[in-house]
Amino acid sequence: MIENAYYTEEFHGPFELYTIGDFELEDGGVIPDCQLAYTTYGELNESKDNVIVIPTWFSGTSIAYEPYIGEGRALDPEKYFIVIINQIGNGLSSSPHNSPAPIDMANFPNVRISDDVRAQHQLLTEKYGIEEVALVVGGSMGAQQTYEWAVRYPDMVKRAAPIAGTAKNTDHDFLFTHTLMEAITSDPGFNSGNYQSCQDVADGLRRHADIWAVMGLSTEFYKQEKWRLFEVDSLEEFTTGFLHPLFQAMDPNALLTMAWKWQRGDVSRMTGGNLKEALGRIKAKVFVMPIDEDMFFPPRDCEAEQKLIPNSELRVIDSVCGHFGLFGGEGEAYFNQIDEHLGELLSIPVEDSVVK
Amino acid sequence: MIENAYYTEEFHGPFELYTIGDFELEDGGVIPDCQLAYTTYGELNESKDNVIVIPTWFSGTSIAYEPYIGEGRALDPEKYFIVIINQIGNGLSSSPHNSPAPIDMANFPNVRISDDVRAQHQLLTEKYGIEEVALVVGGSMGAQQTYEWAVRYPDMVKRAAPIAGTAKNTDHDFLFTHTLMEAITSDPGFNSGNYQSCQDVADGLRRHADIWAVMGLSTEFYKQEKWRLFEVDSLEEFTTGFLHPLFQAMDPNALLTMAWKWQRGDVSRMTGGNLKEALGRIKAKVFVMPIDEDMFFPPRDCEAEQKLIPNSELRVIDSVCGHFGLFGGEGEAYFNQIDEHLGELLSIPVEDSVVK
Repeated sequence: MIENAYYTEEFHGPFELYTIGDFELEDGGVIPDCQLAYTTYGELNESKDNVIVIPTWFSGTSIAYEPYIGEGRALDPEKYFIVIINQIGNGLSSSPHNSPAPIDMANFPNVRISDDVRAQHQLLTEKYGIEEVALVVGGSMGAQQTYEWAVRYPDMVKRAAPIAGTAKNTDHDFLFTHTLMEAITSDPGFNSGNYQSCQDVADGLRRHADIWAVMGLSTEFYKQEKWRLFEVDSLEEFTTGFLHPLFQAMDPNALLTMAWKWQRGDVSRMTGGNLKEALGRIKAKVFVMPIDEDMFFPPRDCEAEQKLIPNSELRVIDSVCGHFGLFGGEGEAYFNQIDEHLGELLSIPVEDSVVK
Repeated sequence: MIENAYYTEEFHGPFELYTIGDFELEDGGVIPDCQLAYTTYGELNESKDNVIVIPTWFSGTSIAYEPYIGEGRALDPEKYFIVIINQIGNGLSSSPHNSPAPIDMANFPNVRISDDVRAQHQLLTEKYGIEEVALVVGGSMGAQQTYEWAVRYPDMVKRAAPIAGTAKNTDHDFLFTHTLMEAITSDPGFNSGNYQSCQDVADGLRRHADIWAVMGLSTEFYKQEKWRLFEVDSLEEFTTGFLHPLFQAMDPNALLTMAWKWQRGDVSRMTGGNLKEALGRIKAKVFVMPIDEDMFFPPRDCEAEQKLIPNSELRVIDSVCGHFGLFGGEGEAYFNQIDEHLGELLSIPVEDSVVK
């Protein structure tokens, strides 16, 4: 275990911890006393059918979804009980830097998207007695978890909205993630995962951030100098003043745990590799929501999957910020689209509700 | 100077060397006895108006254009005198690894696209007495040089066809190139450019290749398993068996010299930063030929420049290989498009020919 001041409530707002016990992982290994960090908005109603689940994205935590939520919005805490759950390994939930031996640091086991969703299911059912989820929605790796929820628990999930992510990770995405991992592991300060502080890996984290600068945004983002949306005055300030310190505060092993997981996201693992069969299991009403300028989850990849989901629609989000559109830097121009689609999705009646 | 067996005629076919003397560079510094390696096809006619100039791309050499040339094709050596000129720093022309002190290895000076084109102009005029170029055509950094030719020597260049490249490098491209450079310079074996052999930098060159695997192709390339075009049987073989050894044979300082040059390609340096004025100078008939799946020279960026060129047309090339479509792995599916456009361009009569 090492200290990392970034993974505190000071930077991520208040969150609760729930222990799901000794958690057995799909690839072998156990996380003893596995903890999920989560944040809730609103109140669970009596019939327990007003639940919205939001899983986190790569490098992000629960606070990243704060701008998605608000009274009068689609994700309205006045109507819904919204549970944002931090994925395992993201720094707030059980992670390499905050776990004791024998799973500390480089010894942290491989975790899969399916592990996260099983863990999240345990939190909802055990702690809250929830049997129905009105909506699962999440961006990027949150979309991977959203798909996993809809395929793994088809009777429980009534609606799903994967934003900027896929049900089965693509080869191109695998290679992209590999470059992110190599940027970190190639730093001599990484020391095979047994560094004293993330500052030892500052160079690797900077290069990792620089690759994000290329793939996370879009050619048009830079042409239009849209980095101004991130409250900086120059391109250089966007990289050195925003992206570099953002990623340099993070734990390298946490990023690698998430990246490994991301690379292998694949709901067809539940159906012997048959993606059509896996997506065909989904009973939820699904809005598949890629971002038009996304360089690694392009709409065509998402559309190919959407066509395999029985009760689904493709809703493309316009954002010159590309994948980082998820950050919401464009304000209303982005969130109005999100709210419109999610509002419509939530307004669609669903059959087979536990209580109706 | 160090040995590098890759930069020999064994791997790049026969080439000639022409010494343009002590060559003063735009950014300061001199390359003493600067040598240009070049290859010719066909014969210069008596009126010296059948010249086609082809500048090389990043990491490539003259041999890369061999599949573009052939009897009965657009670039027909029976009709044209085709001169393929290796850019400075590419390993065949004067480069860090083959230059003596004081400009050896890490001491090699910064070279700009404009330096290359001035050097190439010197070769054509001095050695051959050429005053008119029927066509300049090149891909990627070859396109950057093509634009430089058309703007710098508007009366000399009658036709130009920049393929998959821009007249002014974009910010996004600058950041992309930066990640390529960092992959190399971060390798401890790089030793600030003073390694004993490119094998000392094998890890950095491998990471450099891995970034190319993401940006050089396209999401669809991998989805369709188009790596089979490169005569490999698996995705892993495409990276470890093709891309890694390809780049690991190259000289790290050569790649860095080219990358630095690529980052700063900009014809508007000739007009005080006014791109419209620079492109407005072009008298050549121009076909701007982006590749539709190119991840870093997207058609829209090329089209924006094309609209600033008086006598020009946009001709988009279809290739699921993205930027690496330039390699011609798709065979006729690619070259038929190239031949059609270049054939049409060459058939358009030009005014003000030296000899008519």
